[in-house]
Amino acid sequence: MSEKELFIESLREFLKRDVEKIATKIDKEDYYPRDLVRKLGELGFLIPLTNGLSHYDMMTILEEIAKVSGSLALIADAQGELAGEMIRLYADERQRKEFLEPMSKGEMIGSFALTEPSGGSDIGSMKTFAEKRNGLWRIKGHKMWITQGLYADIFVTVTRTGSSRHDLSVFIVPRGNCVETRKIEVMGNRGTGTAEVIFHDCEVSKDYVVGEVNNGWNMVNSVLEIGRLAISGIAIGLAEAALEEALKWARSRTAFGNSIYDFQGIRWYFADSVAKLNAVKSMAKDVSNKFDENSKDKGVYVAMLKLLSAIIANEIVDISLQVFGGMGYAKGTTIERIYRDARLLRIGEGTDEVQRHIIAKYIERYGIPYI
Amino acid sequence: MSEKELFIESLREFLKRDVEKIATKIDKEDYYPRDLVRKLGELGFLIPLTNGLSHYDMMTILEEIAKVSGSLALIADAQGELAGEMIRLYADERQRKEFLEPMSKGEMIGSFALTEPSGGSDIGSMKTFAEKRNGLWRIKGHKMWITQGLYADIFVTVTRTGSSRHDLSVFIVPRGNCVETRKIEVMGNRGTGTAEVIFHDCEVSKDYVVGEVNNGWNMVNSVLEIGRLAISGIAIGLAEAALEEALKWARSRTAFGNSIYDFQGIRWYFADSVAKLNAVKSMAKDVSNKFDENSKDKGVYVAMLKLLSAIIANEIVDISLQVFGGMGYAKGTTIERIYRDARLLRIGEGTDEVQRHIIAKYIERYGIPYI
Amino acid sequence: MSEKELFIESLREFLKRDVEKIATKIDKEDYYPRDLVRKLGELGFLIPLTNGLSHYDMMTILEEIAKVSGSLALIADAQGELAGEMIRLYADERQRKEFLEPMSKGEMIGSFALTEPSGGSDIGSMKTFAEKRNGLWRIKGHKMWITQGLYADIFVTVTRTGSSRHDLSVFIVPRGNCVETRKIEVMGNRGTGTAEVIFHDCEVSKDYVVGEVNNGWNMVNSVLEIGRLAISGIAIGLAEAALEEALKWARSRTAFGNSIYDFQGIRWYFADSVAKLNAVKSMAKDVSNKFDENSKDKGVYVAMLKLLSAIIANEIVDISLQVFGGMGYAKGTTIERIYRDARLLRIGEGTDEVQRHIIAKYIERYGIPYI
Amino acid sequence: MSEKELFIESLREFLKRDVEKIATKIDKEDYYPRDLVRKLGELGFLIPLTNGLSHYDMMTILEEIAKVSGSLALIADAQGELAGEMIRLYADERQRKEFLEPMSKGEMIGSFALTEPSGGSDIGSMKTFAEKRNGLWRIKGHKMWITQGLYADIFVTVTRTGSSRHDLSVFIVPRGNCVETRKIEVMGNRGTGTAEVIFHDCEVSKDYVVGEVNNGWNMVNSVLEIGRLAISGIAIGLAEAALEEALKWARSRTAFGNSIYDFQGIRWYFADSVAKLNAVKSMAKDVSNKFDENSKDKGVYVAMLKLLSAIIANEIVDISLQVFGGMGYAKGTTIERIYRDARLLRIGEGTDEVQRHIIAKYIERYGIPYI
Repeated sequence: MSEKELFIESLREFLKRDVEKIATKIDKEDYYPRDLVRKLGELGFLIPLTNGLSHYDMMTILEEIAKVSGSLALIADAQGELAGEMIRLYADERQRKEFLEPMSKGEMIGSFALTEPSGGSDIGSMKTFAEKRNGLWRIKGHKMWITQGLYADIFVTVTRTGSSRHDLSVFIVPRGNCVETRKIEVMGNRGTGTAEVIFHDCEVSKDYVVGEVNNGWNMVNSVLEIGRLAISGIAIGLAEAALEEALKWARSRTAFGNSIYDFQGIRWYFADSVAKLNAVKSMAKDVSNKFDENSKDKGVYVAMLKLLSAIIANEIVDISLQVFGGMGYAKGTTIERIYRDARLLRIGEGTDEVQRHIIAKYIERYGIPYI
Repeated sequence: MSEKELFIESLREFLKRDVEKIATKIDKEDYYPRDLVRKLGELGFLIPLTNGLSHYDMMTILEEIAKVSGSLALIADAQGELAGEMIRLYADERQRKEFLEPMSKGEMIGSFALTEPSGGSDIGSMKTFAEKRNGLWRIKGHKMWITQGLYADIFVTVTRTGSSRHDLSVFIVPRGNCVETRKIEVMGNRGTGTAEVIFHDCEVSKDYVVGEVNNGWNMVNSVLEIGRLAISGIAIGLAEAALEEALKWARSRTAFGNSIYDFQGIRWYFADSVAKLNAVKSMAKDVSNKFDENSKDKGVYVAMLKLLSAIIANEIVDISLQVFGGMGYAKGTTIERIYRDARLLRIGEGTDEVQRHIIAKYIERYGIPYI
Repeated sequence: MSEKELFIESLREFLKRDVEKIATKIDKEDYYPRDLVRKLGELGFLIPLTNGLSHYDMMTILEEIAKVSGSLALIADAQGELAGEMIRLYADERQRKEFLEPMSKGEMIGSFALTEPSGGSDIGSMKTFAEKRNGLWRIKGHKMWITQGLYADIFVTVTRTGSSRHDLSVFIVPRGNCVETRKIEVMGNRGTGTAEVIFHDCEVSKDYVVGEVNNGWNMVNSVLEIGRLAISGIAIGLAEAALEEALKWARSRTAFGNSIYDFQGIRWYFADSVAKLNAVKSMAKDVSNKFDENSKDKGVYVAMLKLLSAIIANEIVDISLQVFGGMGYAKGTTIERIYRDARLLRIGEGTDEVQRHIIAKYIERYGIPYI
Repeated sequence: MSEKELFIESLREFLKRDVEKIATKIDKEDYYPRDLVRKLGELGFLIPLTNGLSHYDMMTILEEIAKVSGSLALIADAQGELAGEMIRLYADERQRKEFLEPMSKGEMIGSFALTEPSGGSDIGSMKTFAEKRNGLWRIKGHKMWITQGLYADIFVTVTRTGSSRHDLSVFIVPRGNCVETRKIEVMGNRGTGTAEVIFHDCEVSKDYVVGEVNNGWNMVNSVLEIGRLAISGIAIGLAEAALEEALKWARSRTAFGNSIYDFQGIRWYFADSVAKLNAVKSMAKDVSNKFDENSKDKGVYVAMLKLLSAIIANEIVDISLQVFGGMGYAKGTTIERIYRDARLLRIGEGTDEVQRHIIAKYIERYGIPYI
C-alpha cells in the first residue's frame, strides 16, 4: 500500500469504528456530531488541501465519509471546502494562523454564509451589506441554508460592499451577540446544524476582511467551484453506498423462487447504474486534476461534473431503493436515509439549472470544451 | 353543476376546511386521523363503490384527498378499496351487514393483511397458514406493511389453506389477544398506522371466511387490481398538488431580475409535466371504464396505468421540488412531504417490476392490447 | 360490426391489398403514389371531416394508413387535413365546389404552402408577400418543405398582406408558369413529393382568397391544430406497426437457446412501450373529442398530444429496432423505414419546442389545464 | 506540439483535404473508398497498435475519422481493430509478415467474419464449421453483416471446430472461388461494403490457422473487446461532429427575432450534451489505459464504455438533429447522415443488451467494479 492508500485506509477504519454506529442517530435525532468533526480534524481529514493533498484526495475523503454518513460529509465539506478554502486561498498569514489552523484541527467550527432567503443561486442580488463606520465594518443581513450555522464559531460571510452586482467582499464574523441563528429542519443531511443566520449590525475590524474589498465575486466563485467538486465527491459516495446496499439485498432476497439478482430486469438496473457511476468517477479524476493544475477552464468542467454526478447519484439511489421494494420505504434503513440525503445534491452549491447556465454560457463564448 | 360535481365539491370543501390544516401534523407527528376517517365515512366518501359511484368517481375522490393529504388518501384506499372491496365483492350478505356497513361509515377500521416479510410481491410464496381444527380455522402468520394495521378493528387476512401456490383463502380476523401489531415507521405517507401484524393462532369460525375456501388467489388479484386503480388516483392527486405548488412558487419567486416562470428551461419543465399528467388522466378514464364494464382485460390495463401514473407522478413531484430549490428541501414544506409520499406509489400494490411482469405476460399470451 | 367499424375494416382491406406491396417502393424509389391518392379519395378516406366523420375517425384513418405506409399517411394528411381543412373550414361555397370536392375525391392534389426557408416554426417572420395590383393579388415568395409540392395542382398558400406579424392571408394558387417547384430529398416519408415552392409574381383574382384578408393568422393556427391531431394519428400508427413487427421477431428469433421474448429485459421493453402507447391512445380520444366539441382549449391539448405522441412514437420505434439487432439496421426492412419515417413527427407541424412553448404560454395565462 | 499531437494534426489535415469532400458520396452512392484505405495505411493510421501507439491513440484516430466520415471510421475499425488485431495478437510471425504488414499499409483488405444470420450476439450458437480432411481444413458456413466483406482480400474467419459451444478456431481464408459475397444494404455507415459471406467448402492449410485450434473463444472475446473500444472512439467522433454542426446552426439561425442559441431550452440541450460527452471522453481515457496495462478487468470496463458511449452518442446526435428542425430531416445534410450512422453503435460489436449482460455477470461474480 502506498502512503496515500494507508491514509485512506485509516479513514475507512475510523468511519467503520466511530461513525457507522451513529449515522442513524445523526439522521434520526438531528444530532450534530461535534466530536466527530474534532476527530476528523485530528486525523488530518479536514481541509485536506492544507495538508498537501490533491483535489482528488479531497474528493476521495468526502466520498468515503459519505459512504457512511452523508451528513458528516456535508459538515466536512462546509468546514473544509467552503469556509476552509476561502480562508486557505485568500486570507493573509495572520488570519490563517488564527482561523485555518484550528478549523483544520476541528477545534473551531466555521460556516460559509453566502446564500440569502430571496437569492438562492442568484448571488448578484445579495442584500447583506457591510459599510465602514468609524474604522469598523458594520454588517447587516440575513443568510439562509447555512450548514452547521447553529454550531459555528465563525462565519465566513459574503456581503455587498458597493453598488454594483459584483461589489462583494468577504468577512470573518465571530459568533457573538450580534449574530442570531435559527434552526432550519431539512429533509435529509440532518444533523448538520443547518440554520438561518442573521447579522444585526455586527462590527469587525479590517483584520477580519478576507482578501481585498470588492474582490469577493471572484473569490466566491472560486470557492463555489471547489464546493462543486466536493459535492461531486459526496455524490459518488452516496451512489456507491446505495448500490452496495442494494446488491447485498438483491443477492440475499428471494422472490418467485430465485434470488432477486437472477432477474434480468434487476441485473440491468445494476449494469446501467455501475456504468454511469464509473463514467462519473473517471470524469472526477480529470476534473480534479484541472484544479491541481489550476486550469482556467476548471469552472466549466466542474459544472459538468457536479450536474452529472448529482443527477446520476439520484438515479442510482432511486433505483437502489426500488430494488428493496417495501423495505426501502421503511424509515431508518440506510437506503431510505441515502434517498433523502441525495436529493440535496441537485440543489446545493448551485442547482442543476445553474450548472447548465454556466456550461451554456461558456459554450457561447468559447465553443464546445473537450476534456 | 351536476349532482356528481356537487358531491366532489362537497369533498373539496371538507378537505379545505378540516384536513388541510392538519396535513402537516399527520406527517410530522405520525398522527393517525381517526376522526377524519369517520367524517369521510359520514360524508359518503369511503368505499364509494358501495354508494353506486363509478370506478372513476372512486379515483376522483382519492385524487382530491391526495391533493391535500397523501396519508389520508392511502388510509381511504386501505379501508375503502382494499379491505372494503374484498368484502363488497366477495362477502355474503351477513358479513356485508356486519362489516361493510360500519366500514363504509368509518365506524369500523379494516385493514387488508396480505403482504409478508419474506414475500413482497410474490403472493404465491405466502407462509401465513390457516387450518381447520375442531370446526374452527386457526390462523398463524406474520404480515408486513399493513396500512392502518395499528388501528384496525378487523383484518381482512389472506392465508394459505392448501399445499399449492394458489390455494389461498380470505378470512376476517377481528383484533383480539391473538393479534399482535408493531409499528413500522415509514419515509412518507406517515400517520397511516403502518404495522407488522402477527397472528398467534387466531381462531375464527366459518362465518369469517370470505368467499370460497381456496378461491383466494382470484379474489386477491381482483382486489389488487382495484387497489392499482386507487393508487393511480392518488398518483394523479399528488402530481397535481406538486405542480400547483411549484407553479405558485415559480410565478412569485424572482431570480436574476425575472420571475422564475419566465425562464424557458423552467417553463418547459411545466409543459412536459402537464402533458404527461394529462395523458395519465385520459388513460385513467378509459381504464376505470373497463372496471365499470367488468372488461376481462381490465387487469392488464390497470397494470399499465399504475406503472405510468406512479412513474410520472414521481417525475413531476421531483421536478416540482427542483423548481423550489433550497426551499423544496426544507422539512415541513408541502412539496417536501409530497416528495416522500410519492415514492411509495412505485412500490405499493405491486412494484413497477410486477406491473411490467403482468403486461409482458399478457402480451405473450394474447398479443399487444390496444385500449 | 358497426357501420364505422366496417368502414375502417374496408380501409384495412384496401391497405393490405393495394398498399402493402408498394410501401417499400414508395420509400426506396421516392415514388409518389398518385393512383393511391385517387383510390383513397374514391373510397372516402381523404378529408374525412367532409364526410361527417369525427376527428377521432380522421385520426384512426391516418393511424391505419401509417401502419402500412407512413409516406401515404403524410400525403393523406397534407391533402386532407392541411390543404383540405383550410378550404373546408374557411372557403366559400363556390371555392369548396371547385376545389374541395375534387380534392376529397383525390382528383385534384392540393398542398399547404406555409413554411419558409428562413422561418421554420416562426410564422410571424414570413416573407412571402401578396399585394393588390390592378384588381389582382400578386404573390411573391419562397416556401419550403411542402409535402406533395412536386405534384400539387393547387397551393393553399399563406402570405403576408400587411406590415404586422399577424397580417396574414390565404390564397389558392393554381400551378402554372409562375410556380417553380424543386424537389427536396428527405430522410424518411419518402415518395411524398416534398418540395421547395417558389412563387414568381403569381397573379390571382379575389376569387382565390380564402376567408378574409388579414385574418390568416387565426386560420393558419386552426389548421395547424388539426395538423397536429393528424400527426398524432400517424405517430400512433407508426408506433403500432413497429411494435407488432418487433413482437413477431422477438417471438420467433432465438438467442442463447431461448426465444428473445423470454428475456426479461426484452419483455420489459414491450411492457413499457405498450403502456406508453396506450396512454397516448387514450389521450387521443379525449383531445379529438375536444375538436368535435370545438372546445376553446383544444389548442393546448393538441399541443400536449402532439408532443407526447411524437416523442413516445420515436422511443417505441427506436426500442423496436433495437429488438431486431443487426436486422433492424438493414436497409429495406420495415422497421428501418419506420425508424426514418418517425423522426419527422418531432419536427413537422411545429417542433417539440414549439409545442412546449404553446403549453407553457397557456399555463402562464390560465393556469394548469386538466383534461 | 508533441510528436503525437503532430501525428493527429496530420490526420486532421488529410481528412480535411481528402475525405471531407467525398463523405457525402460515400454515403449517397454507397461508395467504398478503396483509395482512402490505402492512404490511411500509408500515413500510418491503420492498425495503430502495430505502430507502437496506445489504445487511446487508436480511439483518437477513429474519433477524428468519424468526425468527417463515420463510414470510413467503420472501415478503419474493421481493417485495423477487428481483422487486424486478431492477427497482431494471435498470428505467428510468418502470418504477420504475410498479412499484417500489407493490411497495415492498406494494400490488403481484411474482414472479420464472425457473426451469422441466426446468431447475432450469441457466438456460442455458431454454425460455420471447419473440419480436417486430408491435411486441409475445410470451412463451410454463412456469415452476415461483414464490414467491407464485398471488397476483402482475406477473411479472418471464426468457425466451430468441436462439439462444445466454446470450441472455436480462427482461420485466414483468402478470397477465391469458394467464397461468395452478397451485398447487404444498410441504413447508415454506407459505402462500407457490408456483405453476407458464404464459404462453400473453402480449403486452407494449417498455415492459415490463427493461434491454437479450439482456442478461438478467448481470442474472439479479446478482439471484440478491442472492437468495443474502437466503437466507443467512433461514438465520440460522431457525437462531436453532430454537436459542432448543431452549434454552428444554432448560432447563425434566427427565430422569433433571436439566434436559436439564445433560447434557454436550446442552450440546455447543449449543456447537457456537452457534459455527457465529456464524461464519456474521461471514461475512454481510463478504459483505454486498462488495455495498455492489459488489466484483467478491461472487459467489463469496455462493456460499460461501449454501452454508455453508444447510447449517449445517439442521444446527442438526436438532439442535434432536433436543433436543425426541418433542415435536419433533409437527405444529404451532414447531421442526417450522422443520425443514420450513429444508430449502428448500439448494435455493432455487441448490442446494448449484450454489454449489460457482461456487466451484470461480472458484478454477480466479483461485486461492483470501481474504475
